[in-house]
Amino acid sequence: DIVAEVETLLDNRPKPLAGRKAIVTSGPTHEPIDPVRYIANRSSGQQGHAIAAALASAGAEVTLVSGPVTIPDPKGVRTIHIERAEEMRDAVLAALPADIAVMVAAVADWRVAAQAGEKIKKDPDGAPPALALTENPDILKTVGHHADRPKLVVGFAAETQNVHENAVAKLNRKGADFIVANDVSPETGIMGGSRNQVNIVGRDGIEAWPDMDKYAVAERLVALIAEKLAAM
Amino acid sequence: DIVAEVETLLDNRPKPLAGRKAIVTSGPTHEPIDPVRYIANRSSGQQGHAIAAALASAGAEVTLVSGPVTIPDPKGVRTIHIERAEEMRDAVLAALPADIAVMVAAVADWRVAAQAGEKIKKDPDGAPPALALTENPDILKTVGHHADRPKLVVGFAAETQNVHENAVAKLNRKGADFIVANDVSPETGIMGGSRNQVNIVGRDGIEAWPDMDKYAVAERLVALIAEKLAAM
Repeated sequence: DIVAEVETLLDNRPKPLAGRKAIVTSGPTHEPIDPVRYIANRSSGQQGHAIAAALASAGAEVTLVSGPVTIPDPKGVRTIHIERAEEMRDAVLAALPADIAVMVAAVADWRVAAQAGEKIKKDPDGAPPALALTENPDILKTVGHHADRPKLVVGFAAETQNVHENAVAKLNRKGADFIVANDVSPETGIMGGSRNQVNIVGRDGIEAWPDMDKYAVAERLVALIAEKLAAM
Repeated sequence: DIVAEVETLLDNRPKPLAGRKAIVTSGPTHEPIDPVRYIANRSSGQQGHAIAAALASAGAEVTLVSGPVTIPDPKGVRTIHIERAEEMRDAVLAALPADIAVMVAAVADWRVAAQAGEKIKKDPDGAPPALALTENPDILKTVGHHADRPKLVVGFAAETQNVHENAVAKLNRKGADFIVANDVSPETGIMGGSRNQVNIVGRDGIEAWPDMDKYAVAERLVALIAEKLAAM
């Protein structure tokens, strides 16, 4: 829109990512149980949306694939709204090829194996149902091993324990260049909050960044991405 | 607040529920699976919040117990925010005694039997977990059969099939005076939408109301409540 264009014209910052295409995922996914119930997670989309906006500010052409969130679409970014992990995977693959992929969304690891077509009724005399789950597509791993793999693939790892160990294992398994690992235990206030404390896990080691505003994390991550891409 | 007080002073409508206490529940409940995942449902809270506001406009002293929603608290209403069904039950019981209870919330029928203290990890070689569920407290039934039962107890029944039959069965089982039944199949657009088409199921029959704005449903339901209470 015109506002975004004027803001872009007035933005005098360097554009190290001009001419680069980026894909970002953000927010949670919702996995239906039946027509009214679903499995969700506490991701607010704030970190992913901030990264999409920072990539656009740095000159990249950004496609943001977002799960259900209550925050507005970032300006200057093409935002695609999805609900389920499978829809997110399809939208990400449709946006390839790209130079950069930053997979921030808290994608549900599992979906309900047999989604009910009608609302599941409570049986007054019976036992509660057990929800059989099945594995969702691993979007980061799919992108990390894709024939059209972006030059730089960045994953996020939201953990509540063994944050470093889990991130290193994830780096190798997923085919990512970096894993941004954070501890989302409820007492940290990170999930849903405005601040983040992340660890950048790469092939050459782990760097712990200080506690920062999620916008500051986004700016610093985009500077790192620009630096790595320029050196490739 | 002052705005609400001025609005109340300027509101010249009759106050048929002056001196009456009402409890309303609204929105979904979120039932945790682990620190980041939960089971939810698509209730937006629009109908419940509209009813709480309409009861307050009619002069009642209203306690609204609301699950996680993205809409603002209604003015002139005491709003208590909860997340889980058990928290909603506790807040409702703490608000008794009351003259009127309108249970609009889409309370989760089940919660996860054993909530995990840490984020459940995906086992790369293993099968997905099965979520064992256990029954949540039935808040409507608890209130409908309570020693301090409000004079008028109204329940909601969100169904996707056999709407009338399910509502009549619910009326008797729950000890409610009325069940407001609606069809929340996705194609109706009712869940999350601004309109509603409800059926009022009472001991003396079923009345189908036309498709209306949720505020209009709230006004008409409050008029019915005032009429029934006056005749008691």
